[in-house]
Amino acid sequence: MSAKIRLYVEHPLGAGQSVPLDRDQAHYLFGVMRQAVGGQVSLFNGRDGEWRAEIAEAGKRNGLLVCQEQSRPLMLPPDLWLLFAPIKKARTDFIVEKAAEMGAARILPVQTDFTNSDRIRQDRLQAHAVEAAEQCGGTYVPEVAELQKLSRVLDQWPQERQLMFCDEAEVGTALTLAAADHAKAPWAIVIGPEGGFSEAERKRLHGLPQSHVVSLGPRILRADTAAVAALTIWQQAYGDWG
Amino acid sequence: MSAKIRLYVEHPLGAGQSVPLDRDQAHYLFGVMRQAVGGQVSLFNGRDGEWRAEIAEAGKRNGLLVCQEQSRPLMLPPDLWLLFAPIKKARTDFIVEKAAEMGAARILPVQTDFTNSDRIRQDRLQAHAVEAAEQCGGTYVPEVAELQKLSRVLDQWPQERQLMFCDEAEVGTALTLAAADHAKAPWAIVIGPEGGFSEAERKRLHGLPQSHVVSLGPRILRADTAAVAALTIWQQAYGDWG
Repeated sequence: MSAKIRLYVEHPLGAGQSVPLDRDQAHYLFGVMRQAVGGQVSLFNGRDGEWRAEIAEAGKRNGLLVCQEQSRPLMLPPDLWLLFAPIKKARTDFIVEKAAEMGAARILPVQTDFTNSDRIRQDRLQAHAVEAAEQCGGTYVPEVAELQKLSRVLDQWPQERQLMFCDEAEVGTALTLAAADHAKAPWAIVIGPEGGFSEAERKRLHGLPQSHVVSLGPRILRADTAAVAALTIWQQAYGDWG
Repeated sequence: MSAKIRLYVEHPLGAGQSVPLDRDQAHYLFGVMRQAVGGQVSLFNGRDGEWRAEIAEAGKRNGLLVCQEQSRPLMLPPDLWLLFAPIKKARTDFIVEKAAEMGAARILPVQTDFTNSDRIRQDRLQAHAVEAAEQCGGTYVPEVAELQKLSRVLDQWPQERQLMFCDEAEVGTALTLAAADHAKAPWAIVIGPEGGFSEAERKRLHGLPQSHVVSLGPRILRADTAAVAALTIWQQAYGDWG
């Protein structure tokens, strides 16, 4: 069984492996969570599954854990990217958190014609993805990419990667995924910014041979709601929910 | 076409109908949004569809709009309730917002064995539902009920209302809705609190003849993520997304 507290670490994990904690982790574990020597923690690093570890040393600025046994095998998410246009700070954080919980493998913030923000704090968003993975019991942390222009991402679009395009302008039409097609292909989902895509972007996205237009119902969803809804539809059709 | 600004009002709407604004609405429209006499606003009241209206009087503490023509018919959501256990304030707000966007007809905060909070601000949550309806282009505002005990709600459960029960303890099993069954019935979705349902609650929910257990994939979702995912699954199977 997993311990109640789950921590993501960079360090390799394995039977008898010692894992040093950095200052933030030591503060969280011993200061905030009041753990002490002998306490149990679950560790994962995105490569070696989840390990139950015991606290061997507990200091103010550092600590040491020792791995005991694997409590969960590594479970990689499906090869699914989420592309989204950053919005207000709190909602951008939510999108990253939800993408990690819902099992996206890679998160790509993209700048669109109607995106207001021209920078993101990649390190902060990555930390949100780590926290979400710790919370949801995942053994993998999706990578949050640096902000790129959507047009640029599409210029280099991998030929085999299918794209689920949630087009706000298609609100109310009945469009969904045909579960049999492209079930083994890598996929991506693209969610529009508040205010939607520009006409040029819509034309380009509709024209991509890998593109599959999907409608998210008759109401206009906020970007964070749309991300969860789209990930649900995809996971049910192709992903690891079945 | 709808105007850019959408306002929910209590007043009846119809051709030539005058609609007075209250202090908060006047402040929002004239102070925050900088609108003036002659400006266009879309109004809805949850009963008469959406109407395009012109600003006839604009004051600091009041104002008057005159309805011109109906821009959208009333679209009632499916007869779907969302039951959820209130969590931290921000996430409770999000659940209400998302339920309104996703098209729930009624939102019922419930107290479970593991729910920490024993009160909610019903008026504040109702205001969030109004704001979400204004934002998402809906013509209906779901009612947010007062906090009730889950056990009490189940004691009085309507015989014909089906219940989609998202059981955290079923994480990883493949359970979904069979689209053909109960397509015409009223439905409800119940989302567990952080920490899950108690054993007694799970037993009771599993035992209800109206209950349909559904799994939301192999990771444990936060309650607000689970609400959107569950609403997506339901809307795709039975709702107004097709």
